[in-house]
Amino acid sequence: MSFAPVYLDWNATTPIAPEVRDAMLPWLGAAESARFGNASSRHEYGRQARAAIDEARAQVATAVGAHATEVIFTSGGSEANNLFLKGAAACLKSGTLAISAIEHPCVREPARQLRRAGWALREIAVDADGRIDVADWQCAIEARPALVSVMLANNETGVLQDVVALGGDARKAGALLHTDAVQALGKIEVDFRALGVHAMTLSAHKIGGPLGAGALVVDKRVELSPLIAGGGQERGLRSGTENVAAIVGFGLACERAVARRVVEAARLVALRDSIEHALSVLGAVVFSRAAARLSNTVFFAFDGIDGETLVGKLDRAGFACASGSACSSAQPEPSHTLLAMGVDPVVARGAVRVSLGRDTTAEEVERFVATLSHVVRDLKKLASVAF
Amino acid sequence: MSFAPVYLDWNATTPIAPEVRDAMLPWLGAAESARFGNASSRHEYGRQARAAIDEARAQVATAVGAHATEVIFTSGGSEANNLFLKGAAACLKSGTLAISAIEHPCVREPARQLRRAGWALREIAVDADGRIDVADWQCAIEARPALVSVMLANNETGVLQDVVALGGDARKAGALLHTDAVQALGKIEVDFRALGVHAMTLSAHKIGGPLGAGALVVDKRVELSPLIAGGGQERGLRSGTENVAAIVGFGLACERAVARRVVEAARLVALRDSIEHALSVLGAVVFSRAAARLSNTVFFAFDGIDGETLVGKLDRAGFACASGSACSSAQPEPSHTLLAMGVDPVVARGAVRVSLGRDTTAEEVERFVATLSHVVRDLKKLASVAF
Repeated sequence: MSFAPVYLDWNATTPIAPEVRDAMLPWLGAAESARFGNASSRHEYGRQARAAIDEARAQVATAVGAHATEVIFTSGGSEANNLFLKGAAACLKSGTLAISAIEHPCVREPARQLRRAGWALREIAVDADGRIDVADWQCAIEARPALVSVMLANNETGVLQDVVALGGDARKAGALLHTDAVQALGKIEVDFRALGVHAMTLSAHKIGGPLGAGALVVDKRVELSPLIAGGGQERGLRSGTENVAAIVGFGLACERAVARRVVEAARLVALRDSIEHALSVLGAVVFSRAAARLSNTVFFAFDGIDGETLVGKLDRAGFACASGSACSSAQPEPSHTLLAMGVDPVVARGAVRVSLGRDTTAEEVERFVATLSHVVRDLKKLASVAF
Repeated sequence: MSFAPVYLDWNATTPIAPEVRDAMLPWLGAAESARFGNASSRHEYGRQARAAIDEARAQVATAVGAHATEVIFTSGGSEANNLFLKGAAACLKSGTLAISAIEHPCVREPARQLRRAGWALREIAVDADGRIDVADWQCAIEARPALVSVMLANNETGVLQDVVALGGDARKAGALLHTDAVQALGKIEVDFRALGVHAMTLSAHKIGGPLGAGALVVDKRVELSPLIAGGGQERGLRSGTENVAAIVGFGLACERAVARRVVEAARLVALRDSIEHALSVLGAVVFSRAAARLSNTVFFAFDGIDGETLVGKLDRAGFACASGSACSSAQPEPSHTLLAMGVDPVVARGAVRVSLGRDTTAEEVERFVATLSHVVRDLKKLASVAF
């Protein structure tokens, strides 16, 4: 499959992998073996849908070292994060909730909703490279938060947190520990048991699966109140007719992503390194370079060049990258991840993220580097004229 | 498209209409013009996704006489119902919530969650035919509930409520009025303005659209707290990367369903009547026969025949129907709709629902009636031997 502009925004979403799509098509009626059905129906159509969901649940569980009964399918990562935070909070007396300062908005915003509902919200600091500040983590844990959420890999910088090491303290202090593993899945090993968390969020569309499917993997001893209550699907924790096609795609996408992970990561890190080399030559700041990071992600800025402007120029030149600002607001704010790292807001406004994926080729990266060099030189000339 | 067993469970879910599927396929990468993208991305991929969502939003809005800005896409009807009830309640002081006694579980269960959170829950009675009891409605409204939810068409009996007439009192009393129009859409006229409600729930997979898409159509003056908070999509009321393929399918499905509604309803009511005629001959009770009902739905029971048993026999004979019991529990409970209508629980356990749709043919209905007659006679013989 070839797309006109070169896609370098794989952390935002990914095209569906061909095998995943092929597995979904029957459930959309688009194959000879057309199928459909409400998995709660007690007839042949319903039983087929139920069996397909069961198989996908086993695939997701196997991919992350969990038991199938621990997988709660949701409409995506945002819902899973909200389900954990609000669902667990609803079963507890108001207390303290601790999250890292660099969580995705779909962790930060429900945390803020809980604060408005009477919870104390503690944001845990990160260092200049975007790693959790261990001293601040310990300080936060000493306050005995009831809920703690820390992401496994950051969507912007790609920085990995040592959830295993950090989690020990939190568990000892009696906290329910959650990790958002949406960006980590398929890029690093994600093992529910080894991580020692009580709950973990996954998403299909970041790993070559479809939009519309995600999961909260959750220890069955954790009490949760459903966000979407109703027919009692997903062990009563997520009602609504199951999206069979998306769930089937999610299951296979997990299997594929995990099987290809090691080889793919090695390939992408080489491509990423070549971009970073070029960025150094051009004089860019590469954020979090000293930290352990995802192999596919590079987050950078050029002094005096606005990130939105650079992304716009690259877009017109045929390369799709992300700027580091909150993209859902009309007034772009600098990345809260960078601000939490202590990056000057002026520098943060220059941030651009390039994220690679399974279809990214060495030739595309070469062309990107060449184009970036031209565009940056042009913008720098403009900037120097303006001064 | 032909499916081995005859599908007579269109109120549970529907196969995707071919044109709807064709519109979705590019967004699953399965057509020549393969597309994908995160609609929040500020590059070509993102802009294409955004434009497709905008078009679908206009289609949904047009189909139900609403403004595009009033359409909040969700993952389905269950989420939309939960969003309205919990989202509106979160912005109000605890008060009274009134719902009809025959609402779908995805209205009843969030209502019960609110009761546990301090709200008073008032269930409004229905008469023996499943219509809202007007005296009880007025009595409930006199208690000045802050929130009122009454479905437009019941999923089991197909009974229509006169939301326009009922709603006037509720609005005058200052209530926020919501209707679950999931089963009504595409079967009767659904006009947001004419209904005079503050909010209305829709679902794609009941009208030939895909699973994974629904909407809350909501007056912009209604304050709602998001159920899924995060990136701020859908005017901040429903975060999460938009499921473009499902939304595109939903938009077209709305357009189709509304365009075909009148002709289709006339065709289906004739088929339904022929089933009801046969049921009368066989001595069945047809529930809600005296009430205004959806043209595609018939809900019935035979004295002394268990509904689950009948559905099982019909399934093995090649006809997919629904029983009238809550299908998500291992211990089937009789339909709460029938119990609210005052039907004897023993009779209610016999309930079977047949619901027709766009692919249902006269020949299928003829075969169904013949098979039903055989099966019922056999079961009656068994029952008489057992006595």
